[in-house]
Amino acid sequence: MGNTDQSDFLRTLYRSWSDRMAANPEMTIADLRSLFDEWHQSTLEPEGVTYKSDVLSGVDALWALPVGADTKKVILYTHGGGFAVGSAASHRKLAGHLAKHLGVTAVVIDYRRAPEHPFPAQIEDATAVYKELLSRGFKPTDITTSGDSAGGNLAIATVLKLRADGVALPGAVIAFSPWLDMEHVGKTLQTNAATDALVSKAILEGMSGMFLGEKGSRVDPLANPLKADYTGFPRLYINAGEVETLLDNAQDLARIAKAAGVSVTLSVVAGMQHVFPFLAGRAAAADDELRRIAQWFKSA
Amino acid sequence: MGNTDQSDFLRTLYRSWSDRMAANPEMTIADLRSLFDEWHQSTLEPEGVTYKSDVLSGVDALWALPVGADTKKVILYTHGGGFAVGSAASHRKLAGHLAKHLGVTAVVIDYRRAPEHPFPAQIEDATAVYKELLSRGFKPTDITTSGDSAGGNLAIATVLKLRADGVALPGAVIAFSPWLDMEHVGKTLQTNAATDALVSKAILEGMSGMFLGEKGSRVDPLANPLKADYTGFPRLYINAGEVETLLDNAQDLARIAKAAGVSVTLSVVAGMQHVFPFLAGRAAAADDELRRIAQWFKSA
Repeated sequence: MGNTDQSDFLRTLYRSWSDRMAANPEMTIADLRSLFDEWHQSTLEPEGVTYKSDVLSGVDALWALPVGADTKKVILYTHGGGFAVGSAASHRKLAGHLAKHLGVTAVVIDYRRAPEHPFPAQIEDATAVYKELLSRGFKPTDITTSGDSAGGNLAIATVLKLRADGVALPGAVIAFSPWLDMEHVGKTLQTNAATDALVSKAILEGMSGMFLGEKGSRVDPLANPLKADYTGFPRLYINAGEVETLLDNAQDLARIAKAAGVSVTLSVVAGMQHVFPFLAGRAAAADDELRRIAQWFKSA
Repeated sequence: MGNTDQSDFLRTLYRSWSDRMAANPEMTIADLRSLFDEWHQSTLEPEGVTYKSDVLSGVDALWALPVGADTKKVILYTHGGGFAVGSAASHRKLAGHLAKHLGVTAVVIDYRRAPEHPFPAQIEDATAVYKELLSRGFKPTDITTSGDSAGGNLAIATVLKLRADGVALPGAVIAFSPWLDMEHVGKTLQTNAATDALVSKAILEGMSGMFLGEKGSRVDPLANPLKADYTGFPRLYINAGEVETLLDNAQDLARIAKAAGVSVTLSVVAGMQHVFPFLAGRAAAADDELRRIAQWFKSA
C-alpha cells in the first residue's frame, strides 16, 4: 500500500478507539488497558531483535536486544498511555525499532499506573530502574531516557528527579510527542482538535485526574515539565506530529530547554498523528524519523 | 514465587476474563478481541528469538525465528480463541517457546476470524499458507502444524483438508488443548465445569455459533475433527490440562486417531488449565511439557 495508507493506519486505529470509548463511556480501566494495548498493532516487527523478560528493582520490564547492538548502552524506555494505560507489551516493537536504529539495547518498564498508583509512583519506579542500571554497570552517559506521550513526560521528569537527588544524569533524552501540560492550556489542544484522531482535552482531563490524584499539583515541575528549570539537562531530541493536539507541548519544551542552554533538536512531521513512530516498519515517515534520531544520537 | 503461584497466573487471568465478560454481556467483538489478546501476559519472553512480520498468500503472519534454529523446518501455528478472538500477537511468545524447544522456526498466522468470516475461512487460510510454505521450498515433512484450543482444531482440520485435496501432508501435528466437539456433548464439559476458570458450555456455544454461521454443520469432520477418519494422518502429539472442560476432546481424539493406526502421544497434566503451555518461562509445568514435546519431536 502507498505511504498515505500506511500513515492512515494509526489514524484509523485511534479513530476506532475514540469511537469505542464514546460508545462505552463506563469502560473499566481493565478494558481501557486492553484497548490501548492494541497500540502494538501499528508497528511491524523489527527484524533481528530478541527480547528478555526481567524485573529491575521490583519493576517488571522487557529488554529489547538487537542482534549486534552495543550492550554497554541502553535506552530506559517509559511507555505512553496517560500514566494509566499502555504497557511494555504495547511498546515492545517501537522500543525494538528505536534500539535497533541507535545500535543499543532498550529496557521497557511496566511502571505502576494510575489511578491505583498516582503521581509520583511512575517517577519513583523509573528512577529506581535507572539506579539499578547503574548498579548493573551501565555508565550514566551510556543511558538514554526515552518515552512517548505520558512516557515522554516521564523520560524528562525522571531526569529532573535524578538531578534533584544528585544522581549522575543520562547522556541523552528522546521524547516522542510528550504530554507535559497538565493544565490543558496549550493552544494546539484547540487548533488541532479536528485533526487529532485520539487526544482531546476531555481524555487528557480524565487521565491527568487519575495521574495527579488528590495530592498532585498541575504545576509541579515533576508532573508538568513545562514548569521545570532545564539548567544542566542532557541533550534532548523531541518530536511531534504536525496535526496532533499536543504539538505545542513539544514546541514549548524545545523553546524552554533551549533558553536554558540545552542542546535541543525538535522534529515536527507534516500530517502525522500522536506518537507517529509507532508506524515503524509500516510507514516511511516513521522509519525516516528513526533514522534522523539515530543520526542525531550518533553525532554526539 | 513458587510453582503453584506460577501456575495460578493463568487461572487468575482466566477468572478475570470470565468476570469481565459476565459484568459486560454486551461486550463487542472488538473489545472481546482486546481482552483475549491479554493471553500473551501469561508467557514470559523466550530469549534468543527474533521475529519478522510477513504476509503469506494474503494472510498476515508473524515469524518466530530462534537464533540457531533449523530454518528448513517450520511450525505452521494456528492460534486459539474460538475462531473469533486471539491473534498472532497473543500467541507470539508461546510459538516462540515451542519453536525454540523444537529447534525450528514458526509462522503464526492471523487467519480470518468469525463471525465476519465463518467456517471454512480459517481452513482456507491455513491451507493457503501451507501451500505457500511448499512453494517457498519447505518440504512437507519439514512442516509441523500446531495450535491451541480452536487453533488446535485448525492444526488438525487443515491436515484433513490437505489430505482431501491430495496435497502432501506435514510431518507432524501438535495440538494443545484442542477444541473439537462442536456438539458440546463432552462429559468433562460438565464434570470439570467447576475447575475450568474460562471455558464453559455457554462460551463454547457462543463461539461455535459464530464459527459455524448459518451454513456450517456441527458434525462436519472439518469443523468437528472428532467425526473425522484419521487413516494416514501424521504422528500426533496432544495435550490438555487435567482440570479443563475440554479434557475429553483431547482424550477422544487420541483414542480415535490411535484406532486408525496413527502414532499418538497424549499428555494430560495434573492441575492445569486450558492451554497451560501459555505459562512457558513462568511455570515449570509448562516448560516441562515443552521439553516432552521436543523429545517426542526429535525422536522421529
